[in-house]
Amino acid sequence: MTQFMNKKEHLVQEAIDGTIAASGGKLARLDGYPHIRVVMRTDWDKSKVALVSGGGSGHEPAHVGFVGEGMLTAAVCGDVFASPSVDAVLAGILAVTGEAGCLLIVKNYTGDRLNFGLAAERARAFGLKVEVVIVDDDVALPELPQARGVAGTLFVHKIAGALAEQGAPVEEVAKAAQRVIAGTCTIGMSLDTCTLPGAPKERRIPAGKAELGLGIHGEAGVEQVPYSDAKDAMAMVIDKLSKELAPNGEFVAILNNLGGASVLEMSVLTHELAQSSIGTKLKYIVGPGTMMTSLEMHGFSVSVYPASAEDIAALESPTPLCAWPGLKSLSHVQVLELPDGLRPVRPIASDHAETRAFLTKCCELFIEAEEDLNALDTKSGDGDTGSTLSGASRALIDAMDRLPLADHTQLYRAIGQELSETMGGSSGVLLAIFFAAAGDAASAGHTMREALGAGLDRMQEIGGAKVGDRTMVDALEPALKHLNDSIEAAASAARAGADRTAAMLKANAGRASYINAEQLKGHVDPGAEAVARLFEHLTNP
Amino acid sequence: MTQFMNKKEHLVQEAIDGTIAASGGKLARLDGYPHIRVVMRTDWDKSKVALVSGGGSGHEPAHVGFVGEGMLTAAVCGDVFASPSVDAVLAGILAVTGEAGCLLIVKNYTGDRLNFGLAAERARAFGLKVEVVIVDDDVALPELPQARGVAGTLFVHKIAGALAEQGAPVEEVAKAAQRVIAGTCTIGMSLDTCTLPGAPKERRIPAGKAELGLGIHGEAGVEQVPYSDAKDAMAMVIDKLSKELAPNGEFVAILNNLGGASVLEMSVLTHELAQSSIGTKLKYIVGPGTMMTSLEMHGFSVSVYPASAEDIAALESPTPLCAWPGLKSLSHVQVLELPDGLRPVRPIASDHAETRAFLTKCCELFIEAEEDLNALDTKSGDGDTGSTLSGASRALIDAMDRLPLADHTQLYRAIGQELSETMGGSSGVLLAIFFAAAGDAASAGHTMREALGAGLDRMQEIGGAKVGDRTMVDALEPALKHLNDSIEAAASAARAGADRTAAMLKANAGRASYINAEQLKGHVDPGAEAVARLFEHLTNP
Repeated sequence: MTQFMNKKEHLVQEAIDGTIAASGGKLARLDGYPHIRVVMRTDWDKSKVALVSGGGSGHEPAHVGFVGEGMLTAAVCGDVFASPSVDAVLAGILAVTGEAGCLLIVKNYTGDRLNFGLAAERARAFGLKVEVVIVDDDVALPELPQARGVAGTLFVHKIAGALAEQGAPVEEVAKAAQRVIAGTCTIGMSLDTCTLPGAPKERRIPAGKAELGLGIHGEAGVEQVPYSDAKDAMAMVIDKLSKELAPNGEFVAILNNLGGASVLEMSVLTHELAQSSIGTKLKYIVGPGTMMTSLEMHGFSVSVYPASAEDIAALESPTPLCAWPGLKSLSHVQVLELPDGLRPVRPIASDHAETRAFLTKCCELFIEAEEDLNALDTKSGDGDTGSTLSGASRALIDAMDRLPLADHTQLYRAIGQELSETMGGSSGVLLAIFFAAAGDAASAGHTMREALGAGLDRMQEIGGAKVGDRTMVDALEPALKHLNDSIEAAASAARAGADRTAAMLKANAGRASYINAEQLKGHVDPGAEAVARLFEHLTNP
Repeated sequence: MTQFMNKKEHLVQEAIDGTIAASGGKLARLDGYPHIRVVMRTDWDKSKVALVSGGGSGHEPAHVGFVGEGMLTAAVCGDVFASPSVDAVLAGILAVTGEAGCLLIVKNYTGDRLNFGLAAERARAFGLKVEVVIVDDDVALPELPQARGVAGTLFVHKIAGALAEQGAPVEEVAKAAQRVIAGTCTIGMSLDTCTLPGAPKERRIPAGKAELGLGIHGEAGVEQVPYSDAKDAMAMVIDKLSKELAPNGEFVAILNNLGGASVLEMSVLTHELAQSSIGTKLKYIVGPGTMMTSLEMHGFSVSVYPASAEDIAALESPTPLCAWPGLKSLSHVQVLELPDGLRPVRPIASDHAETRAFLTKCCELFIEAEEDLNALDTKSGDGDTGSTLSGASRALIDAMDRLPLADHTQLYRAIGQELSETMGGSSGVLLAIFFAAAGDAASAGHTMREALGAGLDRMQEIGGAKVGDRTMVDALEPALKHLNDSIEAAASAARAGADRTAAMLKANAGRASYINAEQLKGHVDPGAEAVARLFEHLTNP
């Protein structure tokens, strides 16, 4: 699979440099690329307990994304899925550890244990107080004495980080970390494997299956299970987790994106987690978020921890790190009543012989022009302009008895409402906007000419068409401009405008914008033609 | 492609409910599923200008993720890649708009323009002050008059949101939004298409190609370009953007993950953006982050905007929304000097005949046992325990002249240092930890027995092996326990411990943990055997 990377041997360094560049000056790195890849806070004065974590790369934002106030002091990065060297870890410890000492937070993988462990010994030989905790939150294989360290590590980073930030001594920070580790359980599920940078993708998980109980290094899950949907997937994950949970108590969950699940999917999984059999026990949630990934693995993990009030305070304490999504109470979905006003208020019907005759005349024109306009539209669109207009006209004639024909101000809005309900497509909405805006202007006391002009303005604002764009605007705009002179002047301006569209070889709005110049040449735009015909029709008494 | 979802027709509603559930009570929705999908702030009192955005779903966290203090007031969600209905938009407007009015922030797609536009008209008929802005930041086709609205919309959300939160009148908020829209340019690139939920994946982009200038609805990019690496990809994107940039001025960039790029890749792209030809013009960056996605599309977009000091203040103003990554200065990478202490301080060599003889005797034992131990290891591991130990022993004999043989406290640490440099694999690191910890204890004034015990404790802590786990600990732990009695008692305890490993059918640590019971049965663990032989050897005068 192709990836956004350069040379594989520069991948981790370039990613680190990118993260530092976008940290707003809050992060720096130690010299010593490529062997030493240590990222640390620039606002660090060694007066408090330092927190150092790290391990293989490929789990971003872990751990560099969690280096900052209230969380880690430094992160030591190995190559993708490979432990950093003893020297790199030692460099990290020495760079950030003062008299208060430091805590190493190590995920339970042999390489990390050994390299962080030996580095700790070396650092102790310098007289530094170094504590080590090993995170083993994975419950995929409950009988395995060496459980892996996965996304539950974030609980440790945040709770130990808050304590350290408050100035707690290293023994207390380490003890809290141990307590968090002892209580944290995580399990993951994925629909697809991750892809090692520069390597071909291993397609291990067949369609219709998911892997349950997986680590974060591309290793196979403990079992392949049938996959049906998100609800069932979450139920399987919760089934594994709930075996590990104390029967009573309130828990915090971390819902972690393993890298390749979309935000939409993660939101559905959040819904399923809240609805799950342990949903009522989960008082708080961290996420959904992308915190501890396995490159672009299309999966998620759920971590749970029975947090005390003290832990909650630590999880809630502020940190400026955007990789930490924050602690939120997991709540039911509040549903608010719909506002009034969605059912349109029908105006009171009234009759007015002249208006009825005028409107009917307009409608009849469009019904008559149906075939001509359809024919024109086949040249530049989908051939339905005539049918759309005649259909709307027939509906308007049917609606005549419920229109406020005697109240011209209300009439505009009423016509707009009718058109939006009966006329399909963009043109129905645009004409509805035209009449609604004209109604607004009319009720504000403007003349008919001004009201129609306001309708045109708003229709253009929303539709985006200007004169010259090969739409009905090319006829409507000049017609309205001359309407105060005489209906004949308006009609002749509309006709001239419509005819000009035959020479416009590029449509800039509407469906004709997808048609090429050769096809458009010599054909009048059907919308403009409809407008011209309308005004011409109105000149006949 | 399989996805974490349930029924397609419930997808958007379930995702919204998940987001609300994890919002800590900050979000609620209007009644009216599935037609009306409006998410709004619960802490909203209509005293300020409301900001309403939305459009098709599939762009999460946009827009629901940006509903909250300092950004949007409500988001109206259509189906995946489909505009919400006029009624839904109107419901959103009516639910949040008070006397201060509201601003609709609409991405430039025909459906959204029309539906938001008509809803705005309807809302105005209720006497509400409703302003509409259309975001058209995409520069993929500079000559296209109807540019699409993509990730640059986030600039509008944040800057208009900050103004509204400060209590600015609606006209001012709309004017600022217009100014931001006029200045914002965005272009996107992808290595793969997105997958419509429940539909098969369209594999449109061949290997070795990328699509440049794409929208966020799965539509094809303006061109397919050859893809070589991240540097070249970013250069192509920047080339398109820089044509639109004023020659002078300072810009803010949004680096947006279109959904499927890994965090590692996004960090590399950040590095390339900072290093690019416009890198020095980019004073600030928002991201990298997942803000405006096209489902799980494996791509990114860069948006740039020439922000004024006022805009910067608005972009920097706080919001509790974790989907907003915050504004950071884009800075050079600060490289700190390596700390002292990485080069190990060599102890001063000294001689001591007895110690030299003792150590040499131990080493000779292991050299002699090489073949036996290798043979045992072939039963449970990779057959190299003997070679590893004899190699280290030979190296230690060679190193004898530079060891501090007369200073037993220093000697432990020196042996640990030698072993970590010459002995490969986990066992080298574990023995280095053993001797380093023993050295620590010795220098703290403990007896040899206590010092070795401290070494064992630390080695177990890091290695994770307990008695019964079928490792060298099974012999070493009982031997050290009886060392104060006599060397003979220690040797006999070590032998008994080693022999017990032959009956251990499950290894819980080390390489033998991968071997099944049948293969292990009747064979002594080679590490335990080595320890037993050492103590037995030491009983011979």
